[in-house]
Amino acid sequence: MKQYKIVIDTKGSDRGAGMMIKGASLALQKYPELAVLLVGDTDVMLAECEKNGMPMDRVELLEAPETITNYDSPAEALFVKRDSSLVKALEALSERDDLVGLINAGSTGALIAGSMRYLSGKDRVRPALAAVLPAANGGFTCLVDTGATIDCPASTLVHFARLGRDFMKNLYRIENPRIGLLSNGAEPTKGNKLVKETHALLRDAEDINFVGNIEGNKALSGECDVLVCDGFAGNQVLKVTEGAATRIITDIVKYSKKTGDESLMKLVGYLMGIYDFNSLGGGVILGTVKPVIKAHGAANEQSIVSTAGIILNLAENKELFDKSAFDIKE
Amino acid sequence: MKQYKIVIDTKGSDRGAGMMIKGASLALQKYPELAVLLVGDTDVMLAECEKNGMPMDRVELLEAPETITNYDSPAEALFVKRDSSLVKALEALSERDDLVGLINAGSTGALIAGSMRYLSGKDRVRPALAAVLPAANGGFTCLVDTGATIDCPASTLVHFARLGRDFMKNLYRIENPRIGLLSNGAEPTKGNKLVKETHALLRDAEDINFVGNIEGNKALSGECDVLVCDGFAGNQVLKVTEGAATRIITDIVKYSKKTGDESLMKLVGYLMGIYDFNSLGGGVILGTVKPVIKAHGAANEQSIVSTAGIILNLAENKELFDKSAFDIKE
Repeated sequence: MKQYKIVIDTKGSDRGAGMMIKGASLALQKYPELAVLLVGDTDVMLAECEKNGMPMDRVELLEAPETITNYDSPAEALFVKRDSSLVKALEALSERDDLVGLINAGSTGALIAGSMRYLSGKDRVRPALAAVLPAANGGFTCLVDTGATIDCPASTLVHFARLGRDFMKNLYRIENPRIGLLSNGAEPTKGNKLVKETHALLRDAEDINFVGNIEGNKALSGECDVLVCDGFAGNQVLKVTEGAATRIITDIVKYSKKTGDESLMKLVGYLMGIYDFNSLGGGVILGTVKPVIKAHGAANEQSIVSTAGIILNLAENKELFDKSAFDIKE
Repeated sequence: MKQYKIVIDTKGSDRGAGMMIKGASLALQKYPELAVLLVGDTDVMLAECEKNGMPMDRVELLEAPETITNYDSPAEALFVKRDSSLVKALEALSERDDLVGLINAGSTGALIAGSMRYLSGKDRVRPALAAVLPAANGGFTCLVDTGATIDCPASTLVHFARLGRDFMKNLYRIENPRIGLLSNGAEPTKGNKLVKETHALLRDAEDINFVGNIEGNKALSGECDVLVCDGFAGNQVLKVTEGAATRIITDIVKYSKKTGDESLMKLVGYLMGIYDFNSLGGGVILGTVKPVIKAHGAANEQSIVSTAGIILNLAENKELFDKSAFDIKE
C-alpha cells in the first residue's frame, strides 16, 4: 500500500497537543495508508503517543521548542521564531517529497503568511482560506475567501474563483464546478463596487462556469459549487451561519426543557451532526503546492480526522493540485 | 382618544392590494387609536374595504392609478410616475400634519429615494434602511444599514450609528443604546479599511456608547442595541440568518417526516414564531422626519399589523423622532 505522510503541528491549538495527537491517533486508525510527522515538544509528543497507543512505525517526531501564538505578528513571527513548530512544519513540507500536506490549529495569519512563503510555488500567487460547507441539497459548497484577504481588487476574487474551482474538481471530482458570486441581489447590477467589477470579469472569463450573483440566503443552498467573496464578507457568511445555527439549537434545548419533551434532544444531536463545523475540518488554504489545512482553534479530535481525510483525498490527485498553484496568475 | 393616521401604499406588494388592505383591517381592529389613508386604485380599495368590513369612519382613500415596480429606475420613477401610489403617498405624508407615517411593500430603491426627496428635512441626510431583529437574550438589535447604502465612507457609518441610537431610544426607551460595529474579529485591528476607519471614529465620538467590534456569530447575541455596518454587509447578516433559519426549520420538518414524530411540528411552529421575519415588520427607513417602513415584498397581513404598531409607538415620541432627522449632520 502506498503510504501518505501528513505533517501535524501539535502546537497552537486552544485544546493543546494532547487533542492534536489524540486526533492523529484516531486518523491513523481510520486510514491505514496514513502516516504522520508530528511537530512539537518531543517529550510531550512521546508521552501522548504512548498514552494513545500510537502505531510508532507510522509516526515520526520533529522537535520544535517554540510556539507561534495569536499574539505574535504573523509575518514577524516566521522570521523571529525559527524554531517554532509552524516554521519547522512548513520547512519540512516544502523540502521533503514524502510529505503530502499539513494540519495546523494555531494562528491563521501566521499559517497563511507561512504558506505563502514556503509553499506558494514559483508564481507567489495570493493564497485564500476556503471553507467547505454542507449545502442544503446534500452537496458541498466551497466558500472562498473566508478571511485571508480582507481588502483586495476584483482580479484577486477571479483568482480565488479559479483556486476554488480546481479544489472542488480535485476533492469531489466535479467536472465543471459552478462558480457563484456573493452579492446583495441576484441581478448583475447589484453589489458593491468590488462585486460589480468582479461580476463583469467572471462573466467574461471563458474558463469559468459562472452562474451569476448569489444572495446570502442562498449561500449554502447548493446553487453553486464555489461561492466567491472577499474575506470580510466570507467571514460574515461563515460566522453568521454558525451564530444562527447555534442559536436555534439552543432554542430547541430551551424548548425541550420548558415542555419536558426530552425526545427533542435526539433532534438536537441530529442537527449538531449537520451543523457541527468541527466535523468539516476547518479552513483549507488554496494556492499552495501542497494542501495546508487550518483546523479551528477550538477544533476537536474528530476534526483532525476529517482534515486528514481531506488531505489524503487531495494527495491522490497530486498532479491537479500542483497545477492550481502553478498555472494561475493574478 | 387621540387618533393617529398612517398612510398605506396598497400597491407594489408581491401579494397585491388585497393583502395590504386585509392587513390594514387587522391593524384597525388591534389598535383603536389607528386610522389609515389607503393609496391606490379607488375601485379596488373600495371593494377590498367592503370585503373586510372596514370601519370606514377611520379609512380615507387616495386615488393613484400608477404603480412603481422593481423594474423601474428608482430615481427616475419618482419624476416620471407622478401619479403612482408611492409618490402620492409621500406627498401626502410630507404635506399633511395629521399623517404620522408610511407603510410600503414595493420597490425599496424608490422608497428610499422618495423618502430622501420628500422627508429628509432641511439637512438632506443620507437615509439608512434598518432592521429590528430579535436578539438571543430576549431583547432587540437594530441592524443598520441593511441595503440602502452599499458603498460609503466611514463618516456615513457613524451617521448611521446615531440614527440607530435615536431610533432604539424612541422605540424601546433604551437610555443609552450600546453601539457595536460589525467586523471579522473582535480586536480593534480587525476589519476591512472601512471598518477600521469607522472603529476609530466611533471610539472617539463622545455622544456614542461604542462597545467595539462584533463578529458575525454574535450579530444577534444582544451584546449591542445597534449593530452598524454598510448595506452590503448588513444585507448578508440579514439574508444569511434567514437562510440558515429556513434551512434548519426545513431539516426539522424532514426529520419529523423521517422519524414519524409529528409532535415536532409544534416545535417548528414555535421556532417560526421566533424567526418569522414577517412578524418583525420589515425594514425601517431612518433619517426621515416621519417614520417610513418598508414591509418585505412577500410580507403577509400580520407584518402590516406589526408595522403599524411600530409606527404608532414611534408617533407617540414624535418630538424625539424629528430630532433624529434634524440634528444629525453627516
